[in-house]
Amino acid sequence: MTVNTEGSVARVAVMGAGAVGSYFGGMLARSGVHVTFITRPAHAVAIRANGLFMDTLTFKERVTVECATDASGVKDAEFVLFSVKTLDIEDAARAIAPHLAPGAIVVSLQNGVDNVARIRAASGIDAIPAVVYVAAAIPEPGRIKHSGRGELIIGDFPGSAHAQDPQPTRTGRVAALFTGAGVPCKVSDNIEADLWTKMVMNCAGNPITAIAQTSYGHAARNPETRELMRKVIEESVAVARASGVRLPDVDMAEAGLKLAETLGEATSSTAQDLARGKRTEIDSLNGYIVRRGAELGIATPVNFALHALVKMIEQGAERRGKPAGSAS
Amino acid sequence: MTVNTEGSVARVAVMGAGAVGSYFGGMLARSGVHVTFITRPAHAVAIRANGLFMDTLTFKERVTVECATDASGVKDAEFVLFSVKTLDIEDAARAIAPHLAPGAIVVSLQNGVDNVARIRAASGIDAIPAVVYVAAAIPEPGRIKHSGRGELIIGDFPGSAHAQDPQPTRTGRVAALFTGAGVPCKVSDNIEADLWTKMVMNCAGNPITAIAQTSYGHAARNPETRELMRKVIEESVAVARASGVRLPDVDMAEAGLKLAETLGEATSSTAQDLARGKRTEIDSLNGYIVRRGAELGIATPVNFALHALVKMIEQGAERRGKPAGSAS
Repeated sequence: MTVNTEGSVARVAVMGAGAVGSYFGGMLARSGVHVTFITRPAHAVAIRANGLFMDTLTFKERVTVECATDASGVKDAEFVLFSVKTLDIEDAARAIAPHLAPGAIVVSLQNGVDNVARIRAASGIDAIPAVVYVAAAIPEPGRIKHSGRGELIIGDFPGSAHAQDPQPTRTGRVAALFTGAGVPCKVSDNIEADLWTKMVMNCAGNPITAIAQTSYGHAARNPETRELMRKVIEESVAVARASGVRLPDVDMAEAGLKLAETLGEATSSTAQDLARGKRTEIDSLNGYIVRRGAELGIATPVNFALHALVKMIEQGAERRGKPAGSAS
Repeated sequence: MTVNTEGSVARVAVMGAGAVGSYFGGMLARSGVHVTFITRPAHAVAIRANGLFMDTLTFKERVTVECATDASGVKDAEFVLFSVKTLDIEDAARAIAPHLAPGAIVVSLQNGVDNVARIRAASGIDAIPAVVYVAAAIPEPGRIKHSGRGELIIGDFPGSAHAQDPQPTRTGRVAALFTGAGVPCKVSDNIEADLWTKMVMNCAGNPITAIAQTSYGHAARNPETRELMRKVIEESVAVARASGVRLPDVDMAEAGLKLAETLGEATSSTAQDLARGKRTEIDSLNGYIVRRGAELGIATPVNFALHALVKMIEQGAERRGKPAGSAS
C-alpha cells in the first residue's frame, strides 16, 4: 500500500478518466491508493456498480475506485492525474482550479508538448508534464483493456520554480506514488526532450494509422509510409531544435520508427477517434508542428498534409461524395 | 450517322471499356458508329444480352455495341479508344499491336501525362493523347451512369510526326468522329498543357477524395483540404514547368480548384477504386510527380505524402491494426 508523507493512504483524483487515466488510476487503486475518477456518466455508472475491471497483460482484476462526474471530485486529492483530451484542456483546468486542495500536485498525462503551458495559461495551475507510454482502451464502460507497455516519464521544465525544490521534490513524490504501485516512472532531467521524442513519433504514427486505419507497426514497416513517417519526424525535429529543445544526439527518425515498431499491432488514439466519429487531438500533434513551424520559419508540408487530411475526415461522413459519380 | 472518309460507317474499338471507354464508345454507337468493346466478361455478357444501357444527364437509352474479351477485337477498327487503367498500359498496348489494321488511329483516353510515351515504348504504337472530362461510372455490368460533363481535348505533341500531316489530319478525323456523335472534342495546339491542367487537378483531387472518401467539390471547398490541394498543384506545376511544359499564364492552383468545384458531388476514380479494394492509378498521378520531381531536383513532399497514404490504404485491410489496442 502506498502511503503519503504523513503515513496515511494517498488520495488521487483522475481528471478525465479515459483509457490512459483509467489505466494509471486503476493501477494506483489496485495498490491501495484512494482513487477518484472524474469521468463520463456511463463509465462512472458501470464502475459504481461493479468496480473497474482491469484486463491487463499480467492480470485480470476488479479494483475499487470512486467516481465523480464533475470537477469538484478533485477536492481532497493530493495528486491529480490530468488526462482529458487535449481539446478540453482549458475547460478542464478552469473547472478543477477552484476545487484543488492546497499543495495538490497536478500531473498532465497527455500527448503533445504544450499542455502544461496551456493548463497554466487557462488556470494558473503549475502542472508536471508526463510522457505516457501505454497501449490501452476502454472496450466498454467500466472496463479497461491494457495491451502494451505502461510507464511514465515525468520531470519539471528547466526553468520551473520546482527545479530547486528541497527533498522530497514533487516529481520525486509522484515517482514514488507510481513505482509503489508497480508502474515504472522515471524522473527525467530533460523532460522537454522526452516529450518531443514521443511527440515526433505521434506526429508520424497517429495521422497515418488513422487515415489508413492500421497499426503503428504496419505503418512503420510498410516501405512507403515508413519513408513518409521519416519525413514527418525530420520536419518535426527541425521545429523542436529551432524551439531550443535539446534533443538527444541520435537519428530521431530511426528512433521514432523503432518506437512505432514496439507498439506493434496497437493502433493510435487518433485512429480510434476517427473510427468512432469523434474529434481527434490532431491539432495538438501535427497541427502544433505546423503552427510552431510557421512561427519559426520552418517548412512543414508533410505535417500540413496529414493534419489537413485528418481534419477533413474528422468533419465527417455527412458531406461525403455520392458513390454514383466518378470523374476519372 | 457518322461515316468515314470512304463514305461507309466508321468502325471503332474500345480497348478497356470501363466507365470512360463505355461512355464515349456508347455515345459513338448511339450515333450509328460500329463500336466493339474489349472489356471484362461480366460487362460483355450483360451487353450481349441487353445492349449497353446509357443513363445520362440528357437521355436514357439502350445502344448496340459488339463485345470482345480479347485484344483481337480491335482488328477491323479505324479508330481505337485506348482506355485501360494506366496500370495496364504496357500489357494492353502489346496485346493490341499485332491486331491493329494499317492506318488505325489509337487515342489514349486516360489520366496522366506519360501514357502516349508508355504506349510507344511498350508497343511502337503512336497514339494521340486525349484529355477526358467526364463523370461516369458503371453501377452494374451493362450499364453506364453519366453524371457530368463529357468532352475531350485531343492534339498531337509538337514534335510528333503527325504535326505536319495533310488535311484531314488524324486529329481532325478523330474530332469529326466525336463531334458527329454530339461529343465536344477540341483539337489543341498545346496538348501537353491541357494534359497537365487536368493532371494537376487529378493530383490534388484524386488522393484527397480517395483518402477522405468525399467529393471533389467538398475537398475543394473545405478550407484545410483546399489549402492542401493548392500546395499539391503548386508542386506539380513546378515539375511541369521544369519539364518544359508551356502552361498557360494563369494561377494554375486557382484554376485547378475551380475545376474541382465544377465536378461538384462527383468523387474520383481513385476514391472508387479504394472503396472497392481495387488498385488505383496513383502511380501515374502523384507517383509520377514524385518520380519526375526527383529527376528534376524539385521537392514534392505533399505529393509524396498523398501517394504513400493511397498506396498504404490500397494494400488493404488484411494487415490493419487490432481495434482493441490504443497506444495514445
